[in-house]
Amino acid sequence: MIEFWFEFGSNYSYLSLMRIEALAARHDVTIVWRPFLLAPIFKSFGWDSSPFVLQPQKGRYVWRDMARRCERYGLPWQQPTSFPRRALLPMRVALLGADQPWMAAFCKHIMQMNFAEDRDIDNVEAVTEALTALELPASALIAQAQSEENKLALRRQTEAAQARGIFGAPTFFVGDEMFWGDDRLEDALEML
Amino acid sequence: MIEFWFEFGSNYSYLSLMRIEALAARHDVTIVWRPFLLAPIFKSFGWDSSPFVLQPQKGRYVWRDMARRCERYGLPWQQPTSFPRRALLPMRVALLGADQPWMAAFCKHIMQMNFAEDRDIDNVEAVTEALTALELPASALIAQAQSEENKLALRRQTEAAQARGIFGAPTFFVGDEMFWGDDRLEDALEML
Repeated sequence: MIEFWFEFGSNYSYLSLMRIEALAARHDVTIVWRPFLLAPIFKSFGWDSSPFVLQPQKGRYVWRDMARRCERYGLPWQQPTSFPRRALLPMRVALLGADQPWMAAFCKHIMQMNFAEDRDIDNVEAVTEALTALELPASALIAQAQSEENKLALRRQTEAAQARGIFGAPTFFVGDEMFWGDDRLEDALEML
Repeated sequence: MIEFWFEFGSNYSYLSLMRIEALAARHDVTIVWRPFLLAPIFKSFGWDSSPFVLQPQKGRYVWRDMARRCERYGLPWQQPTSFPRRALLPMRVALLGADQPWMAAFCKHIMQMNFAEDRDIDNVEAVTEALTALELPASALIAQAQSEENKLALRRQTEAAQARGIFGAPTFFVGDEMFWGDDRLEDALEML
């Protein structure tokens, strides 16, 4: 069992999200999906954006690194013209779907919109498209995602991330052992 | 040819410094040693220490990550009780030695003091020990390292790092292609 903490706005979460299913299957490991919000965590460090925006040198490097990594992994890639993209609505839907059979496919669809198609994802149209592609009842799920109960649940999940010591995404847990970054996905799985 | 930009105070530089010779030899690649100072670069971001100190959550993780990485690479490891350690004198000696046959052995000795033996490295005794172990004229080299000319040369090298867009250590260059972090050492070498 590997816990996968991620956020749709995070480019390195994109890499892991596109890779984790095949890797977990190869290791015969179950994925526990843990969507959470990065912004409140960054805010707790006094940051009002991603470190890739706040540190332009690192930002420039990261886009080059992403292009190389996507090439290596055979993933489509387009540098987003807006970064980090807000992802509140799709994150709320992902929280609803965390235990559902459509979770991986939904998340991949949203990630591809952001990082392969350079499209905004924090709106009803984008989320409807992703859900409809999976033949899911989009309106009903979006309404449920926007319920007070589910909004609160995502806040709680984000607080849980903070309490676990999470400071970025993606983060993986194998038991109490924490692994940060797409680079450590293989290490986490090998631990099992 | 791979450029290896590093600093003795940097724990991830330790991993690369202990691994790069064998890896470069396997790829039949020459290492160009580029010691530089991290502190002025961090200062340019408004930081008065390492991000691993300024962000305690990340710091806690990094020490766990280091222990796991050292185990994987078969490297000795002791979490330094003082971090980041000042390394001005050994860095100045490293700049002198960059083209010398003793460079790799000297750098490994200093890194081991810091990250395997938890010893201070920014003093004449420590540097003398490392140079003497290689049967080098320690006093003469230390005097030369502390000349105005060499001090200025290390400042210039650090400015060159900044001008190249370096924001952390280790950093590798293959031509104009930049790679940041010990995790990318293999990628950099595979590019050649």
